[in-house]
Parts: sequence; C-alpha cells; structure tokens
Amino acid sequence: MNIIDIINKTKRHQELSDEEISWLINAYTSGDIADYQMSSWLMAVCLNGLSERETIIMTKAMRDSGDVLDLSCIGGITADKHSTGGVGDKTSLIIGPAAAACGVYIPKMSGRGLGHTGGTIDKLESINGFQTELSFDKFAEIVGKTGFSIISQSGNLCPADKKIYSLRNASGTVDSIPLICASIMSKKLALNADCILLDVKYGSGAFMKKYEDAVQLGRLMEKVGISAGKKCRAVITDMNSPLGKNIGNALEVREAVEVLQNKSQGRLYELCIELTANILELAGKGELTVCRKAAEEAISSGKALEIFSKTVELQGGDPRIADDVTLLPQAKYSFAVKAPENMRLSAVNSEEIGMTSLILGAGRTEKDDDIDMTAGIVMEHEQGECISEGETIMTLYSSVCSDFSEAAHRAVSALTMERC
Amino acid sequence: MNIIDIINKTKRHQELSDEEISWLINAYTSGDIADYQMSSWLMAVCLNGLSERETIIMTKAMRDSGDVLDLSCIGGITADKHSTGGVGDKTSLIIGPAAAACGVYIPKMSGRGLGHTGGTIDKLESINGFQTELSFDKFAEIVGKTGFSIISQSGNLCPADKKIYSLRNASGTVDSIPLICASIMSKKLALNADCILLDVKYGSGAFMKKYEDAVQLGRLMEKVGISAGKKCRAVITDMNSPLGKNIGNALEVREAVEVLQNKSQGRLYELCIELTANILELAGKGELTVCRKAAEEAISSGKALEIFSKTVELQGGDPRIADDVTLLPQAKYSFAVKAPENMRLSAVNSEEIGMTSLILGAGRTEKDDDIDMTAGIVMEHEQGECISEGETIMTLYSSVCSDFSEAAHRAVSALTMERC
Repeated sequence: MNIIDIINKTKRHQELSDEEISWLINAYTSGDIADYQMSSWLMAVCLNGLSERETIIMTKAMRDSGDVLDLSCIGGITADKHSTGGVGDKTSLIIGPAAAACGVYIPKMSGRGLGHTGGTIDKLESINGFQTELSFDKFAEIVGKTGFSIISQSGNLCPADKKIYSLRNASGTVDSIPLICASIMSKKLALNADCILLDVKYGSGAFMKKYEDAVQLGRLMEKVGISAGKKCRAVITDMNSPLGKNIGNALEVREAVEVLQNKSQGRLYELCIELTANILELAGKGELTVCRKAAEEAISSGKALEIFSKTVELQGGDPRIADDVTLLPQAKYSFAVKAPENMRLSAVNSEEIGMTSLILGAGRTEKDDDIDMTAGIVMEHEQGECISEGETIMTLYSSVCSDFSEAAHRAVSALTMERC
Repeated sequence: MNIIDIINKTKRHQELSDEEISWLINAYTSGDIADYQMSSWLMAVCLNGLSERETIIMTKAMRDSGDVLDLSCIGGITADKHSTGGVGDKTSLIIGPAAAACGVYIPKMSGRGLGHTGGTIDKLESINGFQTELSFDKFAEIVGKTGFSIISQSGNLCPADKKIYSLRNASGTVDSIPLICASIMSKKLALNADCILLDVKYGSGAFMKKYEDAVQLGRLMEKVGISAGKKCRAVITDMNSPLGKNIGNALEVREAVEVLQNKSQGRLYELCIELTANILELAGKGELTVCRKAAEEAISSGKALEIFSKTVELQGGDPRIADDVTLLPQAKYSFAVKAPENMRLSAVNSEEIGMTSLILGAGRTEKDDDIDMTAGIVMEHEQGECISEGETIMTLYSSVCSDFSEAAHRAVSALTMERC
C-alpha cells in the first residue's frame, strides 16, 4: 500500500478499504508514514469527511495500536462515562460514586485541562495527597473495593491517538467530527468497559458550538461503540452557561462534595441524576424512571458520598474533605464582582468564564504550565435571577494573582444583564 | 502571524491577506513552518482553492524567494515559452531558433523528464558534448550571439518552489490549479523574460486530462503573468495523441532537426509555427498572420536551422547533427510492431506511448534514474491512416533492453485500430 494513493483517494471522495485504513494507522504509529503525509491526509478528512465504516475501522485500528484493558478481574458490570468537556463540569466526581452505589463498577481514566476547560485529574489533585497515577492492578483493586476509581490515562493505551492528536493540534486539523470521534472512542474502547455513556456538550463553553454538530458527533460515537460490541449511548447537553456555580479545581471538588452531601439541587444535580440513570439503564438496572430513582437515592442516602470518601482514602487523599469541605485548599486572595444597579442575570457565557478562570491561574495555556488549585470563580447567582445593587454577582479567587483587574474585566464581559 | 490561523482560514474558505501569504511562503522557505503544517495547508488549497489575488501574491512571493534574473544585458526583447509537458513534445527545439530568426531573443531554462513525459534538457544531452549547465553570463552571451539558448534550471531561482514542489509530490497535493500555476509562473517570473507564451496541454498524455482544466489553468497563468507586468498568453493544445512521430531523447532531437530542415510538415510543424507566431505577436512583431508568415520563412529559409546549429556549437555540442541526423546516437536494438491485417489507426493514446518509452529506457521512474538516450519509438503512420497487413505500425528502439515483449505489448495497447 502507498500513502500517496490513500491521500489521493480521500481527497477525491473515494472510500478507503478496511485494509488501507488499518495500514495507514499502523504505518503512521510505527513511523513509516511521515508527519507531512499524515497531516495532508488529516486535512483531506477535515474537508471531505470519512464514512461511518471508515470511522469505525479507524477507531478500532487506533484502539489496537496499544493495550486493550481486561476489566474482567473487577468481577461485575463496568461502565465508563465521557464528557466532551465544558466549563465547571465536575459531573464525573458525582456520577462515579452514584453509579457505583447502585452496583455498577466505574473504572475511569481522565485527562488534564488545557485552555478554558478543566480536567478531572487536575481537580482531584487539589485534594491533599490524592494519587492519580496508579498501576492497573491497584486501579482495578480500588474499583473492586469501592466501585469507583479515577486515574490519569497511563500505560500504552492508544499510542496512535497520542501521535495523531498532537499532529492535529499542530497542523490545524482538529475540527473534524470523524477525527474527534476516533480520538475519543479509541480511548474508550481501549479502557474496555461494558457500557459507555457519552455526554456530548454544545454551546459557547463547549468544543462543539452548534447543537447539530453535537448530535452528529454523538450519533457517530454511539455507532462506533455499538459496532465494537459495547452498550453505548450519547446524551447531548447544553454548555452555553457554566455547569454549577463553582469553576476552578478545588472549588469544583467542593461543589461536587456538596452535591454528594445532598446540599445542592440545581442544574448540576439534575444533570448528574440524568447521566447516572442512563448509565444504570445501559448496565441493565431497569427502565430509565427506575434508574433515575435509584440515582437519587444513592445521593440522598449518603451512600455515594461514602463511596467517594473511601475512594479518596484508597487513592491517598484526605477522606475528611467528604465531611468538611473547608479542608480543601483555600485561595489567598478573593474579589467580589458586584451589581452596579438592580439587574437580572440573563445569560452567562461559559467560554468567557473559562477564560477568566484561566487568567486567575486555574488552568493551563501551555501543556506544562503550573496551575493554582485554589483559583477560580464562584457564581453567587443562577442565570435568570434578579440581583440588587451592591450585591455580589460572583467571587473571584486566586493565590497567585492579587490584582484582579484583568480577570474582573473578563468576568464581567461574560455576563449579559438586564434592568429589572 | 500564526500558521494554525492561516491553515484554519483556508480550511474555512476565508481569504488570506497579502501579508499572510507572503509570510507563509517566506516562513516555510526559511524553515520556520514545519513540513506537516505546510502540507496540511496545501491540502486545504487542493480542496478549497485559492482566489486569483491569493494565487498572484503566492506566485510573486515564490518568485522573490530567490534571484530574479536581469536579462537587460541581452539587449533586445526577450521571450520565454513554457509547455505543461506532453509525450513527444520537442517544440522548444524548433520554436526557439525560429523565434530567434525573427528577432526575438529566447533565453530558456528547462527541466528533466520524470514519468511518462520527457524533458528538454535530457533531449539536448543526447547531442554529443552538449552542455546544459552554464553560468548565467555564458547563457546570456550565447542568447546575445545566436538569439537562443537552453540550459537547465540552476542557481538560486525560486527556492520556495523547489521546497514546496517536493513536498507536494510527497504529500498527495499535486493536483491543484492554483498550486500548479504558482509553481510554473514563479519560475517564469524569476527568469524574467519580457514575453511569456504558455502552451497548456490537455488530454491523455498531459497532466491536465480535461480541456476545461487546461483552460482554467491557462487563464489563471495569463492573469498572474500580466499582473507581474509581462506580455503573457496561454494557448491550449491537444495532447491526446503524441506530438510528432518520434518519442525518446535522441529520436526527438532528430525529428526537431528534420522540421528545421523543412522536411516535415505535419501536426508538429503546424503547432511550432502557431506557437512561434504567438511569441512574435506578443513581442510586437505585427499581427498574427504576419507573424505566422515570418515563422514559416524562418524555417523555409534555413535561418532557424542555422541558429540551432550555432547554439549547439556554442554549448559544446556537435553542430554537424544539423546537417546529418545520423550522427546522433543510435539504438543497438530495434523491433517493428506490424499490422496483423489491413487496418486503420484511429487513435494513439499518448500516455500509453509515454509508458512504452519509459519501459524502453528513455525515461525515469525515479528522479536519479539513468536514461538511455537512444531508446524510444518511431510512429511510422499518422493517426487516421490505413495500414496494410504486415506493414510496420511503429518501431521500438533501445540500447539497454533487447527483449521487446513487454514494451511491444504496452505499445499495442496504446493503439485503437479499425478494420478498413
């Protein structure tokens, strides 16, 4: 086979054979195809797309480029959840323990944050002592014991994805639904849980700005998952405004704990119940209404909180945070953004809030940047609420930056206010 | 400026600014942009195109990446001819001397052949002693003396084109009209003759298979040339069947000399007269009918042959070949393909004839392959002619290969025959 023929085929809207796709992925991973050839092909895919069959074969070839985990040692039905990323999304910290409380094992691998969206691994590392780099055996052992563990992606999982992803980043070939699908799903299939729930976000704070694109990506990922023998479902959710009230690493753990403590009932809670219920249904725990009830009870009974606490302890973290969130690291500096007059908060742009959080030190601009675990934003009001003159709209936190002028300016630009 | 922004703009059908295009070409040439970024952009251009303005700016930036020749030392009006390449195309060897005989200076740089099309430099090197690598001063001196010289591309002309062209070859991004235009025209503008005649070929033996594409490329190149202050014209010509009866290096020089000796009056002669007349008209030598007459006289008077002979001598070759073509190298082996019954030759596929010539040793598969100067094909009959049973349709020549079975098989596949 010949890379030029393959590039020309995709360029000319001709479908590649299964063999050609597998060869392409293997030859690129092993270094037999040059970066400048692969990036040319990737751009052809960005512009001409891939068929469903081609995407499925590509994803499987990427999965097979490294290890595929064997989770049978856990001894029960396993489920994985993936979110396409958003501002303030701490759902994994809630859904994992909640689903585990209902008898589904949740072995989860997560990533770090880059740009305006956070990463679950960074959030967890704000818990004193929490270890995110564990061996597979240790990981499986914790999942077996508590029902839930989250570690960072490790080992030889999907080397093809690592190589292709960094090339896409450097060659302007990121925004392609088949390529995004293959990147996400190859990692899900390599983790190899029985059920996969995909939370595909759209809106200003999400990678997919348009609802239609999120639907297209979701349907495609479902098909890839099902074709690989998984129970797989995509749920499309709104990320036009931040999820929950806290944005920033320790602040998000705090809010997740508050939800698990059954103290918070807003949009974040509702979404966690919905996603947990979907996982339970995929795992064969009954109809969606039954599963929704089970998820609610997992939280109201305190069972999910207990699982969270045990997992934190087994991963080396301080389990007392489950009872006392003030034990999480606290910011040195804070700044209250106040309402200049009586007004209603009609919209909050989550991308801008994410950028504010980045300015405060909570995120990374470059891959190896340090982050401030305490930095972030607390939205003191929900969207749609009326705020009186002088009342705090939101509070900004940071330990590295005591001058809040730039962050406050950016934060205010995220708000749409109306007189009321 | 940022390469990712530039890639994304072209990917999203947004036009690049003049500054962005110039920066892109300069940064790639100097190594500040990686090959995998440039190939990604080139693929976006293949699929989304470039505007006329973008193509003009790109071509000028490529021209300015190296030296731009100053031909004023030649002391008269200069003209350049470019053909997009075809099988059996030896027109440069005839048009150059013919135009020079009419008072237009022809300083020409040519390339070597690759694949099924030949290169003028290879053809000339079949003349014993002929030097194709001369200094600019020597080149200009010969043009000044005889009116005509052909050398191989040399010096620091269009380094951007060299780098981009080899990347396009290796990344499946060759077939793009704006990129082909920029590659050809940047070299023409760097040579910097006053007039540029473009012979754009279409058909089975040409790079452009479709007439419409050849027209589009021709019009675009004209616009680029004119915008750079040149007198520039594109003529679209048929390359469905080989040009003339001889294909192969020494064989083509032989046929060119026969035309200059006024011994050959077919399609090749007609095309040479037409192209020469166009050059003369561009150079201000009167109306096309007048110029056509002048071109015919240049040949019939023997003046063009005399110029050819002088140029060969000044470039170190044996000038006696102008009188005696048998002094050109001759093949050791030959093979006659004969008509199995009475038939009419209704079509000759020039790409297949080119491939036959390659098999016989006349061309290169890889850039550094050796070639057999004596190898090639002589078509003994014109298209449309009736051939009696047992008569020779064509003769194959080679000095490296005495087994003609593969070549003969390929040659026959090039022919469409009808009973007559």
